[in-house]
Amino acid sequence: MAGSTIGKILRLTVFGESHGASVGAVLDGFPANFEIDLEYIQNQLDRRKPGFSALTSPRKEADKVRILSGVFEGKTTGTPITFLIENTNHQSKDYDALKEVYRPSHADYSYEKKYGIRDHRGGGRSSARITAGMVAAGALTEVLLKQYNIQIFAYVSSIYDVNLSKKHTEINNADIDKNELRCPDETIARQMKQAIEKAKADGDSLGGIITCVVRNCPAGLGEPIFDKLQADLAKAMMNINAVKGFEYGNGFEATKLKGSENNDFYQKTDKNTTTNSNYSGGIVGGISNGEDIFFRVAFKPVSSISKAQNMLDKNGNMQEIKIEGRHDACVVPRAVPIVESLCKLVISDHLLCQQIHKINH
Amino acid sequence: MAGSTIGKILRLTVFGESHGASVGAVLDGFPANFEIDLEYIQNQLDRRKPGFSALTSPRKEADKVRILSGVFEGKTTGTPITFLIENTNHQSKDYDALKEVYRPSHADYSYEKKYGIRDHRGGGRSSARITAGMVAAGALTEVLLKQYNIQIFAYVSSIYDVNLSKKHTEINNADIDKNELRCPDETIARQMKQAIEKAKADGDSLGGIITCVVRNCPAGLGEPIFDKLQADLAKAMMNINAVKGFEYGNGFEATKLKGSENNDFYQKTDKNTTTNSNYSGGIVGGISNGEDIFFRVAFKPVSSISKAQNMLDKNGNMQEIKIEGRHDACVVPRAVPIVESLCKLVISDHLLCQQIHKINH
Amino acid sequence: MAGSTIGKILRLTVFGESHGASVGAVLDGFPANFEIDLEYIQNQLDRRKPGFSALTSPRKEADKVRILSGVFEGKTTGTPITFLIENTNHQSKDYDALKEVYRPSHADYSYEKKYGIRDHRGGGRSSARITAGMVAAGALTEVLLKQYNIQIFAYVSSIYDVNLSKKHTEINNADIDKNELRCPDETIARQMKQAIEKAKADGDSLGGIITCVVRNCPAGLGEPIFDKLQADLAKAMMNINAVKGFEYGNGFEATKLKGSENNDFYQKTDKNTTTNSNYSGGIVGGISNGEDIFFRVAFKPVSSISKAQNMLDKNGNMQEIKIEGRHDACVVPRAVPIVESLCKLVISDHLLCQQIHKINH
Amino acid sequence: MAGSTIGKILRLTVFGESHGASVGAVLDGFPANFEIDLEYIQNQLDRRKPGFSALTSPRKEADKVRILSGVFEGKTTGTPITFLIENTNHQSKDYDALKEVYRPSHADYSYEKKYGIRDHRGGGRSSARITAGMVAAGALTEVLLKQYNIQIFAYVSSIYDVNLSKKHTEINNADIDKNELRCPDETIARQMKQAIEKAKADGDSLGGIITCVVRNCPAGLGEPIFDKLQADLAKAMMNINAVKGFEYGNGFEATKLKGSENNDFYQKTDKNTTTNSNYSGGIVGGISNGEDIFFRVAFKPVSSISKAQNMLDKNGNMQEIKIEGRHDACVVPRAVPIVESLCKLVISDHLLCQQIHKINH
Repeated sequence: MAGSTIGKILRLTVFGESHGASVGAVLDGFPANFEIDLEYIQNQLDRRKPGFSALTSPRKEADKVRILSGVFEGKTTGTPITFLIENTNHQSKDYDALKEVYRPSHADYSYEKKYGIRDHRGGGRSSARITAGMVAAGALTEVLLKQYNIQIFAYVSSIYDVNLSKKHTEINNADIDKNELRCPDETIARQMKQAIEKAKADGDSLGGIITCVVRNCPAGLGEPIFDKLQADLAKAMMNINAVKGFEYGNGFEATKLKGSENNDFYQKTDKNTTTNSNYSGGIVGGISNGEDIFFRVAFKPVSSISKAQNMLDKNGNMQEIKIEGRHDACVVPRAVPIVESLCKLVISDHLLCQQIHKINH
Repeated sequence: MAGSTIGKILRLTVFGESHGASVGAVLDGFPANFEIDLEYIQNQLDRRKPGFSALTSPRKEADKVRILSGVFEGKTTGTPITFLIENTNHQSKDYDALKEVYRPSHADYSYEKKYGIRDHRGGGRSSARITAGMVAAGALTEVLLKQYNIQIFAYVSSIYDVNLSKKHTEINNADIDKNELRCPDETIARQMKQAIEKAKADGDSLGGIITCVVRNCPAGLGEPIFDKLQADLAKAMMNINAVKGFEYGNGFEATKLKGSENNDFYQKTDKNTTTNSNYSGGIVGGISNGEDIFFRVAFKPVSSISKAQNMLDKNGNMQEIKIEGRHDACVVPRAVPIVESLCKLVISDHLLCQQIHKINH
Repeated sequence: MAGSTIGKILRLTVFGESHGASVGAVLDGFPANFEIDLEYIQNQLDRRKPGFSALTSPRKEADKVRILSGVFEGKTTGTPITFLIENTNHQSKDYDALKEVYRPSHADYSYEKKYGIRDHRGGGRSSARITAGMVAAGALTEVLLKQYNIQIFAYVSSIYDVNLSKKHTEINNADIDKNELRCPDETIARQMKQAIEKAKADGDSLGGIITCVVRNCPAGLGEPIFDKLQADLAKAMMNINAVKGFEYGNGFEATKLKGSENNDFYQKTDKNTTTNSNYSGGIVGGISNGEDIFFRVAFKPVSSISKAQNMLDKNGNMQEIKIEGRHDACVVPRAVPIVESLCKLVISDHLLCQQIHKINH
Repeated sequence: MAGSTIGKILRLTVFGESHGASVGAVLDGFPANFEIDLEYIQNQLDRRKPGFSALTSPRKEADKVRILSGVFEGKTTGTPITFLIENTNHQSKDYDALKEVYRPSHADYSYEKKYGIRDHRGGGRSSARITAGMVAAGALTEVLLKQYNIQIFAYVSSIYDVNLSKKHTEINNADIDKNELRCPDETIARQMKQAIEKAKADGDSLGGIITCVVRNCPAGLGEPIFDKLQADLAKAMMNINAVKGFEYGNGFEATKLKGSENNDFYQKTDKNTTTNSNYSGGIVGGISNGEDIFFRVAFKPVSSISKAQNMLDKNGNMQEIKIEGRHDACVVPRAVPIVESLCKLVISDHLLCQQIHKINH
């Protein structure tokens, strides 16, 4: 049973391959009567696209999104919204040398085992280019989130050995895009940049961590037992290319605390019920409690590096090959809008799920 | 849209509350003609049940599972298999004091916000008791996994500040249940036990990490783009009570390596195609590549501790309360069969998904 | 992919076999905070159970339903509601002679082909006994429907060659259960009864038609393109044992009218927008328009008859066999609560679906 | 929860509106490694498109289908297959007069009630133009069906009061497209044509019945209890615009037979197990038994007629309006490839479902 769709009530189906005619997505279940903001959607795609900075892949794609359906006179109609992004700059011959080999830590071998056939051009279906449709769809949901005053943003909190020590509560999200690292601290961002430039010069690549924050999330989102909010967030994130780990609240660090140290105590303020510490990351028992949701997503260094590497071919022989193509020395900054968009889709989906329970309380 | 079901083709629906009549599960989509092993299923439930060691909750539940449907003359019939486990030892009055308060880091507040009503007795639906049905169902799938010679096991690799340094490849899974910690190293297990005993004496609790391993998983399992194998594993694990993080392969550590250090190189051995390092944890591009799958699941210290704690009540007042009930000072060892069973369900589900692709290759 | 579940947001999973331990169902997605009416639910089960009249199977089943989960202090909690009905009066040995043969027009042969194994006792999974859980779940939804003032009822409108000529608008639903035929016209009911008694005396069986009506259905229910309201109703009905056809509004008769004769014209009344004729049966473009929904469901005569019949066995030989067991000469009256309950489930599900669209209009 | 998707394992999502940029569909779950036949797919679209005969709408659409994804070097890759058909000949201004009125028996009123907004141009989302993507997708599955030697065809068996008396077993499917009525009997086809021409001259419209046949369907397809084969076929058909009824095998006529007359007796022939009569229409207990599947689908006369009609407008006033646009006097012949394609999708989906059960028998 194929897995091109995510979401329970708000369902996104993505299609396309890196070097096929186009990539895109169909978003079904988005409610009617919302005025769409096409410029905002295009802006988010521009944040994701290759070539946005010198650190990223030089592949030049206009990534102009067309909406083919589901919108009438600027408003959503409740019918499926189709996003189409043409592939214009694929240089498939760059990949000819890779037709018969299994690149290290790439999906070549496992795709071939699964399907018995694979489109080798630019990674085919396994390319991160597929995320363009996710970004467009996530950006569209902003109009729904705005109605609830929910604010979702992500930023780079670590690259290789350079770490941002600021807590999420100290972040001003207007600072994120002030540098190409999408790290809301100029000094740290500069160090990250230097690390990436050095890796690039060495024909190497670096990974890192993205932190994502949801502010003003209403209490009550999440569907136990098997669609808890953190579980749906984790699943969405783990599906992003190169992601190796997910944690929310204090995450793995919680294992190093005692219960008495780790418990969040509820308290009543003037307007709100909050906790004193929010180690829980805004989700308890799989359901949001109204506090900030925050989580961290670990990205490995991309596998495509310029160094010559030894690769096994289909016939069982080894070949030494330099991957030509066009790669990022570090994809983490480009992944920021992907993380944000998938988070927006998950939160929007759960907002719609929670509509049901409002029928009688 | 409620979330009581997990799986794509093999679908498990769990029902019940901690202090209701019973807990249980319906497993639909399991193929016909498999001889079930009821004793094995009961054994796995016994591994999960409270009171299995002095370190765990003294709640005494027989946890005898009955199979109500889907089996005829000892074999599966292809129809839904229902597991029922009666609740016999609930002492609901222990929880009367908690009816009106929001326990720290418990689901009381968020459930109330979501549903406008909650069964406060023993956590109601949010209780870990709900996992009994998952364990039974996961154990049943063993007969399918055996047919593929797939071996799935989990063990405790860290409690608080005590860590097992052995790699998963060095583990003999026969050693896991030799101690009540389910840590396959006697010396480390003893240290873990001491740490828990000390926490218990202090009325406190500890968390830790479980490592889970899948050996002999066939290549080709996983459904990109949104049901990648690691994403479905992450989602299943993140749904377990008290889990705060998930990573597979080298996980968060991958962010501290360069691409050239982190890449796995394919190589041909006599029988197999493997990689030199398997940092990928047996899954590349969301699809298994035939190598060992391994992942780590972080458990926070349980929130129910015996110390008196300050709790907000429904009326906005604070009360100092000691939670009576019956708690575990550390649930991590008891969670081992839960992690294993959910992993078995995910792998079995993906085995069935992959049947589709076998139609033409 | 197994098919034990129906519904989009309100999801019902049924389990059990005719002669297994029990039959039952899990209803997930029903909203929280509704006071359940257990007596009404039991009454609906009593209407379905065998032996309710001399015309039906003498199998004596108490059909007492227990609710195992999802209800706390008499109210739904938003968690899955489990219905359990024990099988107490199965006389499995009645069916020993049928173990190796394929009964005419029964599911024996096709189940064996599908699963490679079948529980032959009383039809196993293919028995209409499985509908008990559906009836219980449908009856539970009455509390939701009542909130919308929606009224759903069904009645027998034809048995063999005896037809009720009254239109659905002339029916007083209080008349339906005044006779054991569930035909709201005493004279016609008596003729139907005579026809069935004659068939029974001959060791034969009869079929017929059930009409179902939904009054006060709000406009706006139905999810084009593939979950149109009539399509979901048709699917639910076609899944009932012995059903061979479905039509709504004027159904097949519409093919004998011209467009100018068949069109319904909207008109404004004091309170409402209605049409002059409602040939459409209250659903246009797959969406309810606020008028009465009505549809007809055709039941074949049951295949189990007392006459000796020729049956092929597994070895390819013919055997002349009289089916012992306990059969109904006509199941149509007993099917009335099944039709009603499935209709209630479909309408309730679509009510919940429509909650989504209410988010912005 | 929106309804733009059909299928369990083979999932088709359709998008688009009559006068939007395009219509299309995404087919996910089709297995890899099948050589596609683009010419055959285009031919099926040509059979559906308006203007194929003088009896149909003069709207001129090239209906050229492009496949945007999921195919590599002419073969399916196991990834989603996207079909795109541009709308080129929409004359939206024809519909300006209809912006504010509710056409009789059209979806205008119910769409407005559901979504609070509607694209009035050419029916928007409720237009039968949406079926183009279904036809393309159904046609694609032919390569899978061929592998099983399954033959699926449909034909017009009744228009208004003209009926074809031939049984489905007497049909040579090569005769179907020999006339524009798609009725495999020249004499009857001529009478049907005359009836339609007369209706057209009167500014009126006619309905009719399509019979669909599946030959060589393997035994074992269908997923009780809620995805029985006939239920999935019924649901697919009832979703087609203008359909009012569905019956399979002897359908409603079965209600006029006794059990002893209606039972099908299994018998062993040289190669096969068949029945003497196949009143069951090839499906028993919801599962195919290897015999011919056949069913009938009732189409009402289309609601768009050229006669002036009284229409209620949004403000509660009546207007006498002639619908301009471009209509069919009878859509039934054009619906033949739609019925076939949806039937192909359902059968293909169930073939894939049945792969699961083959794992152990």
